[in-house]
Amino acid sequence: MKNADYLTGITTSGTPHLGNYVGAIRPAVESSKNPDLTSYYFLADYHSLIKNHDPKKRKASTLEIAAAWIALGLDYNNCVFYRQSDIPEIPELTWILTCLTAKGLMNRAHAYKAAVQENEEQERKDPDQGVTMGLFSYPILMAADILMFNAAKVPVGKDQVQHLEMTRDIAARFNHTYKELFVLPEVVVDETAAVLSGLDGRKMSKSYNNFIPLFDTEKRLRKMIMKIQTNSLEPDEPKDPDTCTLFSIYRAFATQEQTKDLARRYREGIAWGAMKQELFEYINDILKEPRQRYEELIANPKDIEDILKKGAARAREYSVPFLDKVRKCVGIQSLS
Amino acid sequence: MKNADYLTGITTSGTPHLGNYVGAIRPAVESSKNPDLTSYYFLADYHSLIKNHDPKKRKASTLEIAAAWIALGLDYNNCVFYRQSDIPEIPELTWILTCLTAKGLMNRAHAYKAAVQENEEQERKDPDQGVTMGLFSYPILMAADILMFNAAKVPVGKDQVQHLEMTRDIAARFNHTYKELFVLPEVVVDETAAVLSGLDGRKMSKSYNNFIPLFDTEKRLRKMIMKIQTNSLEPDEPKDPDTCTLFSIYRAFATQEQTKDLARRYREGIAWGAMKQELFEYINDILKEPRQRYEELIANPKDIEDILKKGAARAREYSVPFLDKVRKCVGIQSLS
Repeated sequence: MKNADYLTGITTSGTPHLGNYVGAIRPAVESSKNPDLTSYYFLADYHSLIKNHDPKKRKASTLEIAAAWIALGLDYNNCVFYRQSDIPEIPELTWILTCLTAKGLMNRAHAYKAAVQENEEQERKDPDQGVTMGLFSYPILMAADILMFNAAKVPVGKDQVQHLEMTRDIAARFNHTYKELFVLPEVVVDETAAVLSGLDGRKMSKSYNNFIPLFDTEKRLRKMIMKIQTNSLEPDEPKDPDTCTLFSIYRAFATQEQTKDLARRYREGIAWGAMKQELFEYINDILKEPRQRYEELIANPKDIEDILKKGAARAREYSVPFLDKVRKCVGIQSLS
Repeated sequence: MKNADYLTGITTSGTPHLGNYVGAIRPAVESSKNPDLTSYYFLADYHSLIKNHDPKKRKASTLEIAAAWIALGLDYNNCVFYRQSDIPEIPELTWILTCLTAKGLMNRAHAYKAAVQENEEQERKDPDQGVTMGLFSYPILMAADILMFNAAKVPVGKDQVQHLEMTRDIAARFNHTYKELFVLPEVVVDETAAVLSGLDGRKMSKSYNNFIPLFDTEKRLRKMIMKIQTNSLEPDEPKDPDTCTLFSIYRAFATQEQTKDLARRYREGIAWGAMKQELFEYINDILKEPRQRYEELIANPKDIEDILKKGAARAREYSVPFLDKVRKCVGIQSLS
């Protein structure tokens, strides 16, 4: 196996929604088909241990997310598609990197600082209340995910840029302390990546519980879209597309041409009811086939398991010999 | 394989010395021969990554410590004798436990607090200066070492009692969150364990650089013993055995009868030169045969490697299926 050109992980908590699709799954599916790239995609179930302590939900989410990626066209034969927990080299590398990571670096991580701030605002006695070591040290696990395959580029949202910089910092520390072994990954922030609004107009997110699941029934998809908040403008009154959630969802799926046309109809005063129905039909058309494949996959988990196991075997073609190099470098090796 | 009745680890940094022998190796060798006990002994090389960044020293230390234990009579066929880094289940369990460990627990660990205090005393701006995540989180790795084999008893020095309590705490948190899976280990503090004084009268320790290596040449052993600090009392002046380093070393090896006899001769005014010569001969007699075996072993690292590999295979008879149980418990498992 070759170094990863691209590497992306998705935490196995919750059920995939429209926001995940346009933000992460769709671009990943695209690059999974590129014959010139070695792309790595993984289900980050070790990461999901941090906040989710429900084993059934973790298992269900792993199944649903894997099925969604495959149903939406991930070319799992051309890319490396695996489950993080099938790669035992990752937690081992995590410990090796842990021994080189300054605690001060973790003190500055956004996610940890946000938790401390929340405790301070609530005037809790202990600023670390409710903070687990998983939350505190997960940038090291993330570094191991990336460095395990010497990923050249890691596409991330703006909120993840700091963690990527930490990965570079940790890799540089290893290279300096022991030997030049790790590629420093390049951060790729996709400024153009579509960010969907959710039912209430805020960013569509599991945390806000304002999301539209990707693979619900037609009926429930329609119901969800009908629930999207709009303003009280009457039919025929001109409407502003740029502040409208319906429009932002439509635009994330449509061509430029179609988007321009819809903007015109907004200014001409399209009725909210008609717009919702149109959006539903439009999205439903796109999701109809994948939904069918998704349902078939969910009904045959063994097929997904086989795909993931094959992916893990390919990933380990890289991780096993590379971890061996890392071990030799730090002096953990056969005595003979 | 059965749960561990006893479990002991030794960090692979430095060369084994007389203090290690009477404090840890000798009692371990004794219980390794007990046919009624399942004892686990391991070379803690993952732990050694925390402070030692010299790969050659780590490898040399692993070889020397393994050779020392075997040369001194460890019954490696009756016990389970392995190298920590041969058990990939341990770092994986470490991450699973990391996600359940409160950061506040680690904030209170002695080793971390001592590092912070040192920084504060030196008036350094950052209280975490020089602290790695390895130092901060190693009580979790230690918990994984112990819980991986459900060790019933863990003999420790007083300075390690807190870490054992942390292990119990982490195990209880897992049992409460997911399922009763882990045995809470019992802390066994051996109050009678011999603590040797070093060349300068302080506790014999690698950190103080005041130690006498176990397996140096006869000539150097003699030289070391001649260097032990004594007071300026003349021959024939009565001497106090209880404050004498020579006496404390002799006592750690001798029978009660021999010790009593030597105490009498102290009061009668034994000369320091004569006493040093006697101690050298006494210790040298005990170490002569093991030293020969040790040298043979060091010259044949493959034999040691084979013993360790066999030990790891036996340890994994336990750790592989048990980690599988842990994984199922937290919802990391096959989808089919």
